[in-house]
Amino acid sequence: MSPDSVTLREAATPALVLDRRKLKGNCEGMTTRSHALGVRLRPHMKTLKSTEVARYAIDPLHGGIAVATLNEAEYFAQEGITDIQYAVCISPDKLPRAARVLGRAPQFSFFIDSLETAKHAMEFARANNAPFRIWLEMDCGEHRTGVDPEDPMMLDLARLLSQSPLNFQGIATHAGHSYRASGPEELRAVAHAERLGAVSAAQRLRAAGIEVRGVSVGSTPTAVNLISGEGLTEIRAGVYMAGDLFQVSLRSLSLDDVAVTVLATVISDNRSHGQIVIDAGGLALSKDRSTAVGPGPDRDYGLVLDVFGRPFSPELTVADVHQEHGEIRVHTRRQFDLLPIGTKVRIVPNHVCMTAAMYDSYLVTEGTEQIVDTWRRTNGWQ
Amino acid sequence: MSPDSVTLREAATPALVLDRRKLKGNCEGMTTRSHALGVRLRPHMKTLKSTEVARYAIDPLHGGIAVATLNEAEYFAQEGITDIQYAVCISPDKLPRAARVLGRAPQFSFFIDSLETAKHAMEFARANNAPFRIWLEMDCGEHRTGVDPEDPMMLDLARLLSQSPLNFQGIATHAGHSYRASGPEELRAVAHAERLGAVSAAQRLRAAGIEVRGVSVGSTPTAVNLISGEGLTEIRAGVYMAGDLFQVSLRSLSLDDVAVTVLATVISDNRSHGQIVIDAGGLALSKDRSTAVGPGPDRDYGLVLDVFGRPFSPELTVADVHQEHGEIRVHTRRQFDLLPIGTKVRIVPNHVCMTAAMYDSYLVTEGTEQIVDTWRRTNGWQ
Repeated sequence: MSPDSVTLREAATPALVLDRRKLKGNCEGMTTRSHALGVRLRPHMKTLKSTEVARYAIDPLHGGIAVATLNEAEYFAQEGITDIQYAVCISPDKLPRAARVLGRAPQFSFFIDSLETAKHAMEFARANNAPFRIWLEMDCGEHRTGVDPEDPMMLDLARLLSQSPLNFQGIATHAGHSYRASGPEELRAVAHAERLGAVSAAQRLRAAGIEVRGVSVGSTPTAVNLISGEGLTEIRAGVYMAGDLFQVSLRSLSLDDVAVTVLATVISDNRSHGQIVIDAGGLALSKDRSTAVGPGPDRDYGLVLDVFGRPFSPELTVADVHQEHGEIRVHTRRQFDLLPIGTKVRIVPNHVCMTAAMYDSYLVTEGTEQIVDTWRRTNGWQ
Repeated sequence: MSPDSVTLREAATPALVLDRRKLKGNCEGMTTRSHALGVRLRPHMKTLKSTEVARYAIDPLHGGIAVATLNEAEYFAQEGITDIQYAVCISPDKLPRAARVLGRAPQFSFFIDSLETAKHAMEFARANNAPFRIWLEMDCGEHRTGVDPEDPMMLDLARLLSQSPLNFQGIATHAGHSYRASGPEELRAVAHAERLGAVSAAQRLRAAGIEVRGVSVGSTPTAVNLISGEGLTEIRAGVYMAGDLFQVSLRSLSLDDVAVTVLATVISDNRSHGQIVIDAGGLALSKDRSTAVGPGPDRDYGLVLDVFGRPFSPELTVADVHQEHGEIRVHTRRQFDLLPIGTKVRIVPNHVCMTAAMYDSYLVTEGTEQIVDTWRRTNGWQ
């Protein structure tokens, strides 16, 4: 960390701020919640992509993580994490790279949802002595990837994956459609269906004589709304560590618990058009507009806080973005006076997974504007 | 470049592909166009952020570039480019960093649109022997940043910037509202107003005895639609080098001239729900939805091409994205058969500035699927 940026007011912008105290609270909350349901937590590192964060997030009763890219798998394997679940259907061309990860992280696993990829994996595993750990991905209603549980192919696929040298783990599913839920009642229903779908599929496989060791489900909204963990071995979730405006609108956490914000500087004062401009635009915030379609209020491209993390009254949002410019419509003369050129503000993003991916590191704070540490994160695919 | 990825079919995905032949054609086209208008071109490197690209883009009659972040300025200065225009209003806290860039790139310049920042710049320049080159940013109708040309403050600001040790360059403006134009007629009107606004402002300053050396305007749509360069010293534009679906919808270039695409792999075949899934989602493509509001057809999250760069018929688009998944709705059984798991496809993005920012490098091709080179690019702000 540069010695000339010891507080957020002196930091170069745009920059990504992570409040360690809030992160810790969110991580402890989800681990406790999972244990109360009798399930262990496999934190999904696709949101924050940092080994320092993983230390807070990993459930001591589980020890593993989930990731969304092979780059993340390599990064966390290098840091000594051995149980890494690549929670995406692999394509056959990625098998050599997956074998290299397995060489370093012996409990590395990935998803498959088709007979053709399973055959490729089997062939590769035999030829290269790579006993891949594989989860059969099932569709529990999102209709993105995963086998339809009504499809008779599911049993054939599970039988194939159960054969040596493949190392069949069990059933995995993800209720991504929880993000489209209209409110708490629908969220509880989706969470229930996600669990029930996975548990029923596992039972069907077991009834056919197939050993199913793991039943893995999850998304932050369903993890928060699950009322029973019966039949599950693990819950996967990731966004809860940081939180964002969309998770607030889904009531996964409160605005005050959101741990990640974008630090920006006012660069232009355009009173005649009722706005100020900051140096955080579409790249620094992302163009995600989740709150436009969520159950809560539309927060445009993000909610504006002061440098201490406090909202303005009346509320300010980033109304429009260009590549490196963000426009904040200002309501009162007093707000203009509070926000002269050079002022630092913090923006709560719509969707933290998209926003955080634009940064290589976090300025770590602990409730104040003091920067107590800088943490690296990984990005990209290579 | 890894020796095991000599063609796009063997490359790890998602990856960013740059067709050098198309890049070269686009660069030559814009340089020729500018010269025909009697103006020199200052290519804006915010889109492609690569020194290899700059070699094709720089106008030999000009020699300079524009950038949108101080990180880009540092990157290009290190590569020996001396005329770098940071085409954004600077905030006072960025002046020490700007002075370091100036130390390496003696023609480095930036924008100012307020008396308060001008005073800070003056004070810093005196105290630190940093003769900053400064452009007065004027608003020509976008209402983002820039001084309203009707505001009497403009003359005061120009007078202040003209004083030693500051090094006043002239008037700069950007008709970003060209992106909201409904069609060619409005685009021509915006291009005309952009030029006329800047030229008139320069004349007013000159009439007041202020030396105005430069009159800098531009955006890709206005550069393409400008019919006279009278009074201008330079045109700034950047997206034209690569092109994207939004520029195609604005008729800045044809689809066949788009030089940048995202290479992706089919990872799941979900015929029962009429779609396939690729490993390029919201991060790999960005969540930009420009074509939803442009004058052309809505192409969802991007247009799907085969690995050779040819569109499908009927047309395929990425209908929805998740963090690492893209969903392509498939229309015919024949298309499903053409796109089994493992197939490589290429996606033309909505807005290349947003998409390219997710990648550290380009796989360079020349009209075929052969990878002839790998070029690095810079990203981020630090």
